[in-house]
Amino acid sequence: MDDFTFRNPTKIIFGRGTEARVGEEAAAFSTKVLLHYGGGSIKRTGLYDRLMASLAAAGISVVELPGVKPNPRLSLVREGIRLCRERGLGLVLAVGGGSAIDSAKAIAAGVPYEGDVWDFYAGKAEPRAALPVGTVLTIPAAGSEASTGTVITKEDGWLKRAFNSELVYPRFSILDPELAFTLPDAQVANGVADIMSHLMERYFTNSRPVEFTDRLIEATLRTVIDAAPRVMRKRDDYDAWAELMWAGTIAHNNLLNTGREGDWGSHEIEHELSGAYDIAHGAGLATIFPAWMKLVFSHDPARFLRYAVEVWGVEQSFVDPERSAREGIARLEAFWSSLGLAIRLAGLGIGSERIEEMAAKATEGGSRKLGHFLPLGPDEVREIYRLAL
Amino acid sequence: MDDFTFRNPTKIIFGRGTEARVGEEAAAFSTKVLLHYGGGSIKRTGLYDRLMASLAAAGISVVELPGVKPNPRLSLVREGIRLCRERGLGLVLAVGGGSAIDSAKAIAAGVPYEGDVWDFYAGKAEPRAALPVGTVLTIPAAGSEASTGTVITKEDGWLKRAFNSELVYPRFSILDPELAFTLPDAQVANGVADIMSHLMERYFTNSRPVEFTDRLIEATLRTVIDAAPRVMRKRDDYDAWAELMWAGTIAHNNLLNTGREGDWGSHEIEHELSGAYDIAHGAGLATIFPAWMKLVFSHDPARFLRYAVEVWGVEQSFVDPERSAREGIARLEAFWSSLGLAIRLAGLGIGSERIEEMAAKATEGGSRKLGHFLPLGPDEVREIYRLAL
Repeated sequence: MDDFTFRNPTKIIFGRGTEARVGEEAAAFSTKVLLHYGGGSIKRTGLYDRLMASLAAAGISVVELPGVKPNPRLSLVREGIRLCRERGLGLVLAVGGGSAIDSAKAIAAGVPYEGDVWDFYAGKAEPRAALPVGTVLTIPAAGSEASTGTVITKEDGWLKRAFNSELVYPRFSILDPELAFTLPDAQVANGVADIMSHLMERYFTNSRPVEFTDRLIEATLRTVIDAAPRVMRKRDDYDAWAELMWAGTIAHNNLLNTGREGDWGSHEIEHELSGAYDIAHGAGLATIFPAWMKLVFSHDPARFLRYAVEVWGVEQSFVDPERSAREGIARLEAFWSSLGLAIRLAGLGIGSERIEEMAAKATEGGSRKLGHFLPLGPDEVREIYRLAL
Repeated sequence: MDDFTFRNPTKIIFGRGTEARVGEEAAAFSTKVLLHYGGGSIKRTGLYDRLMASLAAAGISVVELPGVKPNPRLSLVREGIRLCRERGLGLVLAVGGGSAIDSAKAIAAGVPYEGDVWDFYAGKAEPRAALPVGTVLTIPAAGSEASTGTVITKEDGWLKRAFNSELVYPRFSILDPELAFTLPDAQVANGVADIMSHLMERYFTNSRPVEFTDRLIEATLRTVIDAAPRVMRKRDDYDAWAELMWAGTIAHNNLLNTGREGDWGSHEIEHELSGAYDIAHGAGLATIFPAWMKLVFSHDPARFLRYAVEVWGVEQSFVDPERSAREGIARLEAFWSSLGLAIRLAGLGIGSERIEEMAAKATEGGSRKLGHFLPLGPDEVREIYRLAL
């Protein structure tokens, strides 16, 4: 087990109707709040009205910044920073999934920073302070509701970049599984791919031994694999959503990478894809992750064997363990396909045209290797895009 | 899944030599620290000197309060409160296992409280403030290094009582598995019984469905079952200790009871035992928990079947599933015996003499039921003591 430090202070408020507590939770931080969300869905479902009522009852004045898009944009972040400064807001409250929350984190870190908030994403600076962030989660997927991460897309050059900081851990996150009942099929499936990818990025590691966290990751993956088809079939299955939503948070709250180094190459390779084609991150991961697995398989077949047996219940062949190990990848593809996910780029309408460009961008012209399990140069990254075609 | 709130802000610093960081971590809270520990073992091992050097290097002045005993006493807590007040100390730093940490939490909650600190344990008051607590863990067992709980024994009447408060979550806990290398066999085994009991108290629940946390608890139990015999055989097996130590913390940091109600009857029944006979809590649990299981078995045989199959790998009989379910209890007894634990009170030199007295005390003269899985009155509590004989 690698040495580590771990601290996650996010307060989770979980259960039916918990969004009614948003005013009380927010009031612990500020009476002036930036409400940050996407489009009309929270108005259609009535969530917006319930939140506004709770905030008003707690004596909180609200400045609204809607318009967050999937692959959230730097320009809207800048607008949020301006609003917070001009109006003296003390809390950024995100309502939505990873896009709204990541955008809120960017705003929160940008407000007290004198330079350009993109500096954090470009690796030129690290945040030293941030406004508090609160969240009301509506899409189980990104895990941003209890994570240190934020991913933003800069429109100029369509660069999609991330940073991590303990300063942007949400102070509270409200998780009501009922809020997921209205999600369309594609968002559910993309979310499942994202959650599972967070777990698998952590699973494929060179750190040894990591038995405890291996078992926890396997337990979380099996939970997702059990719950996802149930919510696909019956969108208002509270019990299944509850398991899936909580698993999605734990998948990415840093507990499951304690004592181990994850890979994260697939995430970086996917970020170029969704940066270039503006597809959903989860949809991109469903094509990239199996391709990544095939490319890195021979680096550690024994780990793939454990994955196949412990996550997918593959019967282990002692005569031909490699066959059993590869079966795990096939099971993953079959599972994602069963949820309606495209597991090839063709299914997303994407061809080979921009592979060179994306591989160059991801590796910064070949000067940078991606991932830790097996660090990848531009040749390998290109090959992964090709395997995903 | 039950609704819940969860927040655990304890910063974990895990790995070899991490005790050298105690000064830096403590300095974030105060320059005047109460160092609270047991006896000479931390001096014999050199840990005391390393801690004092780190604290001195960080400019911290130290007031010492050694003398914590297993089943820590109220009188020493009172002395700690007096010292903190008189000397204006700003951090209580516990070095040891659950006894030192629980005692430190009691001191921390007692300092700003105008009444008697025992009020918290007697259920007459709740803490509204507490000094910060830090810990350097030397005995993986109680999980107090990242929990809300503290258990103290009042010498007058030998009452052993607990309270829980988020205010006493340690602000930081230093976990160096090497510090466990010098533990004697009995302390290792008692610690394992304590850790497993924390997991099983959470496992046996009436909350439904709780698939995700079931799987996480099973994963943690299997980790302990795998690592414990290895550290018993080879006391300096760092890898096994690392798994066991981290599992022991996660077992009790409140993550694994999210969305479910645990039982905790066995803990209360054991507290009377160690209150009356001054035995180690883990040693008492090794006798009480199997007896509790036998008494409550028929309340939910299906849960015991899952426990047997998923935790112990029992082959399930579809013809006689009850046999398979009961096999789980037998495996637990065999495992604890293999670690040198007594699984009957006779092995601790304890007879039936004080059963009536303990059952009456635990149930407050029969006016109170214990546990949640199957609430137990005085008759059932007496029967559990008898089954443990």
